Amino acid sequence: MPATTPLPRIAITMGDPAGVGPELTLQLLHNSQLFKHFQPVVFGNTKILQRVQQAIPGLNELKPPFMVQLNDAHPDWKNLLADAPYDEPILIDFCWQPAAEIQPGRIQAAAGQASYEYLLAAIDAALQGAINGIVTNPINKEALAAAEIPYPGHTEILAERCEADPVVMMLTSRKITCSLVTTHIGYAEVPQELTTDKICTTISLTAEAMRKMRGHEPRLVVCGLNPHAGEQGLFGNREEEEVIAPAVEWARQQDLQITGPLPPDTAFVPRRREQTDAYICMYHDQGLIPLKAIAFDEGVNVTLGLPIIRTSVDHGTAFDIAWQGKADVSSLIAAIELALDLSR
Amino acid sequence: MPATTPLPRIAITMGDPAGVGPELTLQLLHNSQLFKHFQPVVFGNTKILQRVQQAIPGLNELKPPFMVQLNDAHPDWKNLLADAPYDEPILIDFCWQPAAEIQPGRIQAAAGQASYEYLLAAIDAALQGAINGIVTNPINKEALAAAEIPYPGHTEILAERCEADPVVMMLTSRKITCSLVTTHIGYAEVPQELTTDKICTTISLTAEAMRKMRGHEPRLVVCGLNPHAGEQGLFGNREEEEVIAPAVEWARQQDLQITGPLPPDTAFVPRRREQTDAYICMYHDQGLIPLKAIAFDEGVNVTLGLPIIRTSVDHGTAFDIAWQGKADVSSLIAAIELALDLSR
Repeated sequence: MPATTPLPRIAITMGDPAGVGPELTLQLLHNSQLFKHFQPVVFGNTKILQRVQQAIPGLNELKPPFMVQLNDAHPDWKNLLADAPYDEPILIDFCWQPAAEIQPGRIQAAAGQASYEYLLAAIDAALQGAINGIVTNPINKEALAAAEIPYPGHTEILAERCEADPVVMMLTSRKITCSLVTTHIGYAEVPQELTTDKICTTISLTAEAMRKMRGHEPRLVVCGLNPHAGEQGLFGNREEEEVIAPAVEWARQQDLQITGPLPPDTAFVPRRREQTDAYICMYHDQGLIPLKAIAFDEGVNVTLGLPIIRTSVDHGTAFDIAWQGKADVSSLIAAIELALDLSR
Repeated sequence: MPATTPLPRIAITMGDPAGVGPELTLQLLHNSQLFKHFQPVVFGNTKILQRVQQAIPGLNELKPPFMVQLNDAHPDWKNLLADAPYDEPILIDFCWQPAAEIQPGRIQAAAGQASYEYLLAAIDAALQGAINGIVTNPINKEALAAAEIPYPGHTEILAERCEADPVVMMLTSRKITCSLVTTHIGYAEVPQELTTDKICTTISLTAEAMRKMRGHEPRLVVCGLNPHAGEQGLFGNREEEEVIAPAVEWARQQDLQITGPLPPDTAFVPRRREQTDAYICMYHDQGLIPLKAIAFDEGVNVTLGLPIIRTSVDHGTAFDIAWQGKADVSSLIAAIELALDLSR
């Protein structure tokens, strides 16, 4: 019996077939309780899912999802999904992809290529309005490179395919949320990459996302760059005064609830965390060290600034435990819940 | 009745008189249970302690410690303390210091000068073998500057007075311990200040201290500098391969139990922390962000590489709550316990 009001359709990309993405997808498809709130549209490969199912003894036989055989990587998605039911999971089967020769836990060009195809197709479907958001399983940078797909990760592919610039990487959990002004660049490059504009963008996109997620005006903390936030210019090149403080001032003029630049080491103490909805961090490890120390396994990665909704698990392909049934589905479920919050 | 075996004599410097040091010292002197394990030798000022005692209603009348009036900032310490009893606290009274005009919570040259005098005297007493270690209450860099004493903090004064080079700053707690290869310098200066030699020194001094503290060969983790530890040169200038890895290799040749360089963001996740006795961190906030996020209020600061034992509370003068009875003595007690461990 079809649902009376269509549920949000959320794309789940299967990720690198040799990683933990397939088994997390299977765990999700077994969890029918979740389907009261959304309809999963898996972008993946039936034969891979069957192989992984057979490899993991604990997984029961799966009620087959509604299958959509894909013959073309770039279909008209609205048209393709128009006749699909709204009351059961959908599996978009990239049936041309190789399955038998994929080995778990190894860097393989075919696996990198497959993971890229799921992602591009899901982005297209979202841009065309055929689905309400994308939740991604992990891909592997080296497998992408082996397939001659030269991207460091999801975020850059999403930004380019959506023609979105700038985008911001935010990591969130119930305990702590961090948005990054700079991400995957060397430690030494951070000072020259920091600009007041980028900090303002990060603040603004974070405030907007947190408002949707929390339902109230968020309390933001902006970290300094130097030890003790430079201690009035004693350490560093006055990045706090010249680059960061003007962005905080701008945000105050927008009536945002914002504090900073704070000394990074005391910004994350428990008392401060309780009073903070999100941190604006100047570099990758300034945000990810406390996030993973405090909320490991619970983190969800969100890309802000895209015209579509995209969240992701906060872990990698975990090749060392792939196809073994050891992967924990909680980050994937948290990522779906967040995508639903953001799509409201 | 004198103790049969003399207890270790531990110097407690009172710190900046306008900060929380005096009230922490008073709280300590009230805690006679502690004196079974050591004999406190307070380097401070009677009149300040009396004023703070009167300012805080909750503190009971103190049994007066054994007073040593100081007439000279640089006495022969062994001689001076030779006749002092071993079974009650000693107060070295810097009686020439101004007391009546000191205001709590304010930067004052007289307070900076006083805090410097306690520290120099305690260092001298330790170097002369008259005491077994020093535990310092917080001093204030701006108050030192107002007194024209141009040091950024304790560590630099200790290193110079002890003619010790290099010294290493280690922050420790039951939950997490971090040693810093670089400390109070700007973010941008870190890459050029990192050398394999400094990392080797930090590893070596940390291993030695942890052996004394834990009674077993410590398990050490060395962090990378770049996001994902550079990911095989993808981010950064190959600092991991060229500067950090050779130090780890050297440590392995010394039969140390060591892992790294690890990606900084996953180095501090709970599972890794459980398997790690101490982290070797490349810069101030790489170590202090996770330490304060996880073990706030419990951290103790140790200076390694000195010819004397020195530990410290892990907080500042806290001018905003000074002389109000709100300061928590637990970090001072933890610092004393650690000094005792290290002096064994």
